[in-house]
Formats: sequence, C-alpha cells, structure tokens
Amino acid sequence: MRGVVMYAPGDVRVEDREDARIVEPTDAVIRVTATCICGSDLWPYRGIESLKGPTPMGHEYIGVVEQIGDDVRDIKVGDYVVGSFVASDNTCEICQAGYQSRCVHNVMMGSVGTQAQLARIPLADGTLVATPGAPDADLVPSLLAASDVLGTGWFAAVAAEAGPGRTIAVVGDGAVGLSAVLAAKQLGAERIIVSSRHPERQALAREFGATDIIEERGDDGAARVRELTGGYGAHGVVEAVGTEESMWQAINSARPGGYVGYVGVTHGVKLDGLSLFFTGVHLHGGPAPVRRFLPELIQLIWDRTIDPGKVFDLTLPLEAAAEGYQAMDERRATKVLLTL
Amino acid sequence: MRGVVMYAPGDVRVEDREDARIVEPTDAVIRVTATCICGSDLWPYRGIESLKGPTPMGHEYIGVVEQIGDDVRDIKVGDYVVGSFVASDNTCEICQAGYQSRCVHNVMMGSVGTQAQLARIPLADGTLVATPGAPDADLVPSLLAASDVLGTGWFAAVAAEAGPGRTIAVVGDGAVGLSAVLAAKQLGAERIIVSSRHPERQALAREFGATDIIEERGDDGAARVRELTGGYGAHGVVEAVGTEESMWQAINSARPGGYVGYVGVTHGVKLDGLSLFFTGVHLHGGPAPVRRFLPELIQLIWDRTIDPGKVFDLTLPLEAAAEGYQAMDERRATKVLLTL
Repeated sequence: MRGVVMYAPGDVRVEDREDARIVEPTDAVIRVTATCICGSDLWPYRGIESLKGPTPMGHEYIGVVEQIGDDVRDIKVGDYVVGSFVASDNTCEICQAGYQSRCVHNVMMGSVGTQAQLARIPLADGTLVATPGAPDADLVPSLLAASDVLGTGWFAAVAAEAGPGRTIAVVGDGAVGLSAVLAAKQLGAERIIVSSRHPERQALAREFGATDIIEERGDDGAARVRELTGGYGAHGVVEAVGTEESMWQAINSARPGGYVGYVGVTHGVKLDGLSLFFTGVHLHGGPAPVRRFLPELIQLIWDRTIDPGKVFDLTLPLEAAAEGYQAMDERRATKVLLTL
Repeated sequence: MRGVVMYAPGDVRVEDREDARIVEPTDAVIRVTATCICGSDLWPYRGIESLKGPTPMGHEYIGVVEQIGDDVRDIKVGDYVVGSFVASDNTCEICQAGYQSRCVHNVMMGSVGTQAQLARIPLADGTLVATPGAPDADLVPSLLAASDVLGTGWFAAVAAEAGPGRTIAVVGDGAVGLSAVLAAKQLGAERIIVSSRHPERQALAREFGATDIIEERGDDGAARVRELTGGYGAHGVVEAVGTEESMWQAINSARPGGYVGYVGVTHGVKLDGLSLFFTGVHLHGGPAPVRRFLPELIQLIWDRTIDPGKVFDLTLPLEAAAEGYQAMDERRATKVLLTL
C-alpha cells in the first residue's frame, strides 16, 4: 500500500509500505477514503519532537471496513466508518465515564499511521462508529473532521460548559478553535467571543457562530473579554493554542467559578499555582475523548446541521502529502485534507 | 474592646483596640462569642508573609448582632450569626452562581480582625446567616468551624464531586482535610481514602467517615490510591495541603476524567502544563465560597447530624491567644478555638 513516511524534519515521502493487516482478533483493517494532516504532525516536521527513524504518519481517518478480526462483533466488512485518533475498548470504567482517549487499553492511532491506503484499527468495536451508509462526497470532509479536530473542539466547548445563556470565549483560531466555535453555537451558547487576527479565519468563525471577534492577545485579550461581559469575564473559555500566554489569556478571560476547557497541547507551560488558585476557575482538558461524541457528531453531519469540513482549506491527493506538510508549516493552509 | 494584634513574627499580643463600629450602612457589628486561629494566620507568624506594622488578626467568627447599619434589612439586632471569612453581597452574578468568596464587592475578613470582642461585618445581609436561635454550648465549636474550615473542606469535597458510589481520596489531614472527609461522607461517598501519618488524626478521620488510611506520600501515595481502586484512581480527590508534592499526589490519585478539588493555598507551586494535560483531570479550587454552603451546614449542625467542631483540639480564652499561636506553630494543636 502507499503511505506517508517522515524520514527527518522537513522530509516527508509517500512510498510503498507493507499492507495493514489484522494483528489482534479485535482489529479491523479499513480502506482509507480520506485522511489529513494535523497540527501535531508538524512537531516532528519542525524538529521540535524527535523521530526514531522513518515514521509512518497520520492519526485521522475515515474509510470502509475491508477485514475484521475474529472477535469483532459490531463492525462489519463494508461498513463506512469514522474513528477517533485514540483507539479504545469503550467498555472499561474510564471509557464508560466518557474518557475513551484515556481507555485503559488505549492505542494512539499515530502509532498506526493512517495517512495511507489501508489502516489497522485496534479495538475496532470500541473505536469505530459506522455512518448510516456511504456518504455523499460533500460530507466526506466533515466526517473526517469528526475524527479529531471537530471532536476536540467539541470536547473543549463541553468542558467550557457551553450552553444556553452562556458567553463563551475561544482563544485560538486554528482548526480546533474554529471547531469549538461551531460546537459552542450548536450547544446553545448565547454569545461567542473569538480571538483572531486573520480575516479568513474571522470570517469562518462568524459563519460558525462567533458573535464578537477580538484582536487583542494575552492579558489584553482577557481584559477585552471582561470588558465585553460587564466586568465579570466569560462563563466558559476554550483554549486551543497551548502556550503559556494563551493558557493565561483563557484562564483570565473566565469569571470566578467559570470553566476553562483546554485542548492546546501545552508545551513548556508552567502554571503558577497561587495565581491559578485565586482565579477560582474550573480547569479541564487533555486529549479529547472524541469517541464519546462521534455518534452525535456523525448524525449532525449526516443531517447537514453542521458543516465542520470547512476547516479544510487545502485538498491534495495522498501522493502530494509532502506539499501539504509544507503548506501547513508555512501557514499557507490551516488544515490539509488528503484524498485517496 | 480586647483584640489580638500581631506585631512581628512570633509576637502576638492581646490588647485594647478601638471598638468595632458601623462604617457603611450595610455593616453590622457583632459581639463575637467564639473565634479561632487559622493555619493561614501562621504565615505572618512564621515570617513567610510580611506584616505592615501591627496587624489585627482573625477571620473566623460567630456571635450576636449588636448593631446594624441603616441599609441592613434581613439581619436583626440580637440574631445569633455565622459568616464566611469573605464578606459578600450575595446578589452579584458571581455570588448568584455560588462563588461568594469572589463577589465583585468582596471584603476579606482578615482585614477586619475577628479575634476580638467585637467585629465589624461588611455587607451584613449578604454575609451573615442567622442560626435558629442561641446555640447550646456544645454546638458552638461546630458552628464556628462552619465559618471557614468546614465550609472549605465541604467546597473541596463538592469540587471533587463526592457522591454516592464514588471513591474520594483526601490529601491532607489538617482541619480542612478532616472536614473534607466529613463532607465526603455526608455527600454520600462510598469509600474515602485519607493520607495521614498521625494516629490522632487517623482516628478522627475514621470517625468522620474514612474507610481507608494510607501512610504513603507523594507519588507513592498516588500509586497506593490507584492500587486500592483497581488501577483506575479515585473518582475525586481533595487537596488540602498546598505544596507541589501534595498537588501532584492529588492529581495523580485521580483517574482520567476525575475531579480534583484543591483548597490548600498553593505557595511556590508551578504546575507543568503538559503533565497536567495528560492526566485529563478536572481541577477546581480557590478560596472556598463558604457562604454558599452555610445555611445547609448550620442546619446539619443544629440537627446534630454532623459534629465538625471536633477538629478543635485546643480551647483557650482570647486573652491566651499567644499561647494558641505557639501551640499551632509547634504543631501541638491542629486547630485552636478562642472563647470570649
């Protein structure tokens, strides 16, 4: 099969890899119909994360089931499926509480490498959700978005307690931040304040439901949110960047007793405990348990209630993956979809 | 009036202070019937926090209303009252959401100094809660505990989502930690695991509802909690110490998606963002909004359902306050009650 392999920072190749196959009886193998490049794929690309030799890439995927292991019961050959970027059994206590990304048997799909024609999906019954059928072509980007970026933004909006009557601030206008705007709107938030300086992203944020755009960052951004909310701060805030500045912008944008959902992977952030203590916020985040939300998200997409696929602003064939990595690295693209 | 004044680290005196009086029309003046010494009073005593000259001390109190300002409507002269360590209007959006300790008009009662015969209570209607009548003498310690230490432990247990079927771990066996044990029990927790090495505190923890005592600390303490909970970790954890070690013990004692309520004032703690991210816990804490819980706590005490006053292990007259500070500083006492 053809698949993306990263050899070194800046060196991404598409080459022949050994076909994905059933290893455990709970596995499925899917024929990938679309995959994409994640912001986190840029860490090794930029040399921030080290590689141990040539590494198959990718953890987002949709596709059609080609093979199932002997113990797979619910997923059938021929099913069109979406799965999370973390495989989970969906039966342990952690999964049952809705934290499938921290399943006691979790497998990070990055270790599989889904930027390929075929992908092995561990724990298929717990990981995959079948769509009602083969989707129309225009639904493919949105279903793919559900696999990670939409599910992550949704989780952040839920952690921020987005709901009717609530004012939600969103720090970060990347694919996850924009997905969180869509999620907050769908969850009923009354007002959605988005921090963004990019005209195209501001436009998509508004389309997804943003009511206010602010251009200030850091402490100024937090001060602006408080100013817009009668001095109180937002009821909930989504943090989708992952720097120390963005974390504090998020925390200080929330009112005392407010909720901060953080999904930006926080590199090099040290939170001062005493400062955090006196903010009095609820802080919740981590790798999003996308599987919790997949059935609902697939239905909303299928019904054309939401159109999260709009976060993809560049579509390329798998064979041109290297071009996609370059475009994201150079910020010419927010999120790249790879077709097969 | 007589009152406690701290002059310098280790130098606590009881002396004549100017009588408390009405300053704002929303004030009340109460005749204090009991007050106490808080762990946080030890910071200036130990020189960790600096003093700006002689400072009246104390922020915990119960007493009888002697005078009310012209705008006080609900509280009457003669009422027996309990109030929080933070005065609040109880009407702003933050108070209405249950975060009275962060009221937009909050006044820290430490600035008043309640270790005295009389105390001015700002925002009396929003701050004070009247008891059903003058309490029997044996209820006084418990009502006083409600003013801070019980309310703080209760908030931590609520933040840890203590409830039926839940396993709650408590890090810290001081007055707040022990109060959190009592709270978790009262809130219906099935199992309460307390970290303690002191035989007397272990005994009181068991009396308050602890089902398991562990002596391990730090990473070993967290590992022990996971071992006791089938490898998952506790559903919720109370942190009532405030060191970096105790914070991580608490966080790592919780399962992914679990709840950590932290009320130890975190001095010098820097939380690594990436480590926190991957724990996937809910983190909530800060100065406890004791006022939220006071009506319920007073009733539980009045009905003799709970007996939180047992956390006081030394009772002295106000005039012997210096001896009380010394006993707490030298850890000969957990919590000192001062009678008037």
